[in-house]
Amino acid sequence: MSRRTIVALMGAGIMGAPMARNIARAGFAIRAWNRTPEKVKALLNEGVSVCATPFACVADADVVILMLSTGAVCDEVLFGADGTQGVAPVLKRGAVVVVMSSIPVETAQRHAERLKALGCGYVDAPVSGGERGAIEGNLSIMAGGAEGDLARVLPVLSAMGRVTHVGPCGAGQLAKIANQLIVGVTIGAVAEALLLVEKGGGDAEAVHRALQGGFADSTVWRQHGRRMIERNFKPGAYAHVQLKDLDTARDLAASLGLDLRFGALARDLYARMCETGGAALDHSALYLELAEARKTPPNQPHALANMTNGS
Amino acid sequence: MSRRTIVALMGAGIMGAPMARNIARAGFAIRAWNRTPEKVKALLNEGVSVCATPFACVADADVVILMLSTGAVCDEVLFGADGTQGVAPVLKRGAVVVVMSSIPVETAQRHAERLKALGCGYVDAPVSGGERGAIEGNLSIMAGGAEGDLARVLPVLSAMGRVTHVGPCGAGQLAKIANQLIVGVTIGAVAEALLLVEKGGGDAEAVHRALQGGFADSTVWRQHGRRMIERNFKPGAYAHVQLKDLDTARDLAASLGLDLRFGALARDLYARMCETGGAALDHSALYLELAEARKTPPNQPHALANMTNGS
Repeated sequence: MSRRTIVALMGAGIMGAPMARNIARAGFAIRAWNRTPEKVKALLNEGVSVCATPFACVADADVVILMLSTGAVCDEVLFGADGTQGVAPVLKRGAVVVVMSSIPVETAQRHAERLKALGCGYVDAPVSGGERGAIEGNLSIMAGGAEGDLARVLPVLSAMGRVTHVGPCGAGQLAKIANQLIVGVTIGAVAEALLLVEKGGGDAEAVHRALQGGFADSTVWRQHGRRMIERNFKPGAYAHVQLKDLDTARDLAASLGLDLRFGALARDLYARMCETGGAALDHSALYLELAEARKTPPNQPHALANMTNGS
Repeated sequence: MSRRTIVALMGAGIMGAPMARNIARAGFAIRAWNRTPEKVKALLNEGVSVCATPFACVADADVVILMLSTGAVCDEVLFGADGTQGVAPVLKRGAVVVVMSSIPVETAQRHAERLKALGCGYVDAPVSGGERGAIEGNLSIMAGGAEGDLARVLPVLSAMGRVTHVGPCGAGQLAKIANQLIVGVTIGAVAEALLLVEKGGGDAEAVHRALQGGFADSTVWRQHGRRMIERNFKPGAYAHVQLKDLDTARDLAASLGLDLRFGALARDLYARMCETGGAALDHSALYLELAEARKTPPNQPHALANMTNGS
């Protein structure tokens, strides 16, 4: 019988903590580290070892998962920065690092190269499905990397959700950006359609029901459409994060010689929304921006300036 | 026991013929008329009476359904044009006319007024779901009109699909336009996302699977996304019809003081696509237009010029 796989998870926050819990439930030996240790103490009662440092966390681990806030934080924890030391040199030879945060494609590719030189594998595996998906263990996990590396971590990833191998290293991030691009533009489509129905005197609630199951149906129609009808723009997912994702999509597209027409329009509208007080609203509040599109002259504050934090 | 409801259906074509069949199966007395009589002969074997003229079709009918190609054709059949006579004067007092074609909102409102003066009710009830939905009797039917008129035709409409009352007369058309607006823009979102994945070196097929069930998922993602990956642009739904629908959405929005930003972008891209040889492709071929967006200077023919009829 083979030795039990040891899993390290760094960044046991809103997403990482329930992910660690599901890995423990699946029978793996799992250790977690979080920058703010108070937040992970509860995991001790659920079969997760809590470590005081990243070094203690990764020691002897076969699979090292990062669920940290940004690519820069992943860089720092793996390779160090400003005189601090990263964990990369103490990783077990043959370990596979899995970055599940959303980070730039080129950061993922750089990680893979540096870790390969140390004898370690690398998979980029960002997720979709949010806190609820993390808790319920049904995240959509978009994995990029070599077939062999993915095969070694697949049992662990499968404890957190549904894994799809979407291409070489970086492809997971590419899929995540594609996901965010679709969401941002579809919110625009849904907002304009509901504005048309409401201004035309239709019953938006009834149209919302009628279009379900047809060609116009989408998760955005069901969830964000409902928010728009109820004028419930409490986040959810922040408009400023949607803007950041659309910036990433634009930059990536530009580097590939691709011009995103719908993506650029959505990006500009979210930018204007964030500049005029809407940054902390849910991204579905693009509805308000589009409702105002004609009435407000450029560079003038408008209705959104009076709405913040979605409360 | 009340007398059996008599239903007349005018326009028994690709959509109308299976609709008539489902009305017959539900036990109503149904008569159909079609401009080209050869097309409806098969209905005789399925419990549908076939009439030689619109007048014979509507005589004594309680419910008069129009599934004709345009608002102008509905006008002509109902009220006559250029010396021809329409059926409106021979309608039974108390009959309800149901226009299931996609026609302008103001045409529907005008129909309702003129028929009211003749003692008849009116419901506008365009559909979504296509030929397959018509055959299977699971169309999404968006009904606008007075509560009382709708109540009288509901048993008949329910034989063809799921009926939602979306507001006063014209609201059905409004809902249909909202539907088409969402579809046109979502096709753009899906096309840009797939272009990003493909140019970035990801596995589009795998990403297509990975994103199902998440926030980016939609009917367009599943059906039109698949067409794009397979480069299958055989219609389906024509690009020139999508353009017509986006024109309708734009005109209606303008009349309401609303500026459709995403709708306008989609409209312009479809217009360019139709001008350069793509009119008879499926509307998902917007993918090709967006793939070319950067490479081709304005007013120059491009790759689409060599692709027609989707064959």
